[in-house]
Amino acid sequence: MVIDENFYMRLALNEAWKYQGLTYPNPAVGCVIISKSGEILALEAHKRAGLPHAEVEALKSAYIVLSGDKKILELTESAQIHNYLLENHNDYFKDATIYTTLEPCSHIGKTPSCATLISKLNIKKLIVGSLDSNEIASGGNKVVNDAGVEIKYGVMQKECDELLLPFWLWQKDKFVFFKWAQRLNGTVDGGIISSSKSRTKVHAMRDVCDLLVIGGNSVRVDRPTLDARLVNGRAPDILIVSKSDDFDKTIPLFSVKNRDVVISDNFDILKNYKNIMIEGGGGMFEYSKDVVNYHLTFISPLIGGDDGFTCSSEKFKILNLDQDEQDIIMWMKREL
Amino acid sequence: MVIDENFYMRLALNEAWKYQGLTYPNPAVGCVIISKSGEILALEAHKRAGLPHAEVEALKSAYIVLSGDKKILELTESAQIHNYLLENHNDYFKDATIYTTLEPCSHIGKTPSCATLISKLNIKKLIVGSLDSNEIASGGNKVVNDAGVEIKYGVMQKECDELLLPFWLWQKDKFVFFKWAQRLNGTVDGGIISSSKSRTKVHAMRDVCDLLVIGGNSVRVDRPTLDARLVNGRAPDILIVSKSDDFDKTIPLFSVKNRDVVISDNFDILKNYKNIMIEGGGGMFEYSKDVVNYHLTFISPLIGGDDGFTCSSEKFKILNLDQDEQDIIMWMKREL
Repeated sequence: MVIDENFYMRLALNEAWKYQGLTYPNPAVGCVIISKSGEILALEAHKRAGLPHAEVEALKSAYIVLSGDKKILELTESAQIHNYLLENHNDYFKDATIYTTLEPCSHIGKTPSCATLISKLNIKKLIVGSLDSNEIASGGNKVVNDAGVEIKYGVMQKECDELLLPFWLWQKDKFVFFKWAQRLNGTVDGGIISSSKSRTKVHAMRDVCDLLVIGGNSVRVDRPTLDARLVNGRAPDILIVSKSDDFDKTIPLFSVKNRDVVISDNFDILKNYKNIMIEGGGGMFEYSKDVVNYHLTFISPLIGGDDGFTCSSEKFKILNLDQDEQDIIMWMKREL
Repeated sequence: MVIDENFYMRLALNEAWKYQGLTYPNPAVGCVIISKSGEILALEAHKRAGLPHAEVEALKSAYIVLSGDKKILELTESAQIHNYLLENHNDYFKDATIYTTLEPCSHIGKTPSCATLISKLNIKKLIVGSLDSNEIASGGNKVVNDAGVEIKYGVMQKECDELLLPFWLWQKDKFVFFKWAQRLNGTVDGGIISSSKSRTKVHAMRDVCDLLVIGGNSVRVDRPTLDARLVNGRAPDILIVSKSDDFDKTIPLFSVKNRDVVISDNFDILKNYKNIMIEGGGGMFEYSKDVVNYHLTFISPLIGGDDGFTCSSEKFKILNLDQDEQDIIMWMKREL
């Protein structure tokens, strides 16, 4: 195994993918910081909108390693962390190298600009995967470069762009992903399949989705609530794809507060939303595949159940493969 | 993500698992070398019996990073590399830390002792996962410790022991693994499923297996040769599990030189072998599961085919998850 720029960018990519689907409306981003002497000081990712960006998470972790000062752990607001680092960095980061899957932001939004922070820490080199096409936030590379930091961009750009695609899509239109849970032998029936951790992750994704799409049969048979109770989260709006309106409206799904439920036989309302998760089986997979950007599957290492997808042949490209305590978590793109 | 001893041992583990099934009669071992200043200098694994041990592969890679001297690349014999390192190390490794999933060997077999080599390079610390229970090779920790190197062992020992289990088993008895290839939707029918790279890997595994077990129906229907032609390798002996002897003996399987083919309705002959691969579908899975130690599946990100495993419910623990250019490669252990 060659230990090179791609090795470190791959670490950043893998860390970032763990939070794909959870960062909306922000992009999933990963960051690695290497000390002047070559030591990995931090490997972090952006976890959720409102929490610090990946670079700030990584600088915070690296600061603790370098300074031994854990007071920074008490700070949760990104602005506080920025200020604390600017006041206390003590040139610890001198000649460090930062890898980030995305050009650092240059705008002051929920947090101060990462590019400005990086430009004030005597960093030697910034290695960037994707360029930010977000007009408001972009220009970070220029800010950093103007401060004398060497910049290299385009390292593993294709892979970083794949990580970033959801962000690009929901900025200009919408991002749609299809999520399903299955056993190793492909079955999707017979009640709960995924681990508790996987199901909690799905609830966290629902919490930041603005629309959740489900098939009519699932609603009739499973009578799901489709909220985000496992993370005390917000329940997304629901589109039930069905030709008829024959649902038992007394099930909890229909009485969640602050939620719209639409029943329709088409996807027209998708245009009103930005971050859309479709949950379903083979029928919905087939019906939705032309509007879906990415597919996400949780594979439990089980054999059992009876029924799996019956759909036309498909080929996917694996974008990221991860594992929680039990299940495989795999993001994929359909190959046409 | 915390960058600690477990992080580096996990890197060594993942690298080693890539060669699981290929190192017989040696164990799969991974090694990471960290410089005095904390930089990852090398991440390597033992790839095949006769090639250098993981520690030697890693020291060779680290030497190139530290010295810039690429002449060592011309050396392929482990003994040559040992000698070259001892003559030219120039104290480059002073105060380095070595992570290895298994205690370094202390005996001189196909290669000189890794423990002796490590003990002469001014290494500061050796961090070990599993202790070697091989009576001939063990004692490496003592050799290294006697030379003044600090030793810590038991880091991720459970995971390192899982990596090492095949070696332990074939030393005292035999190791049996069941390999199958499937699509994402669980199907195993309809011709070639795995990528060219996955199939080449399976041939490399056949090359070092001493027995390959296959079901009678597979032989009747697929008429396979079951050799290791993709790697110009040795064809293993074959056990065809079948109650009847009604095979077309003109198919190539029966005429491969230097190969025994046994037809039997039981597994009695397994006792004569050490490293045994079973290839099959659901029927063979069910029939063999009580003699199988590990399961290995290649999952192609495809939907298609018609038939998958029809067997009783099973639960696995994932031991390692990897990906080649297309397929998922997953080692698992049945949970009883």
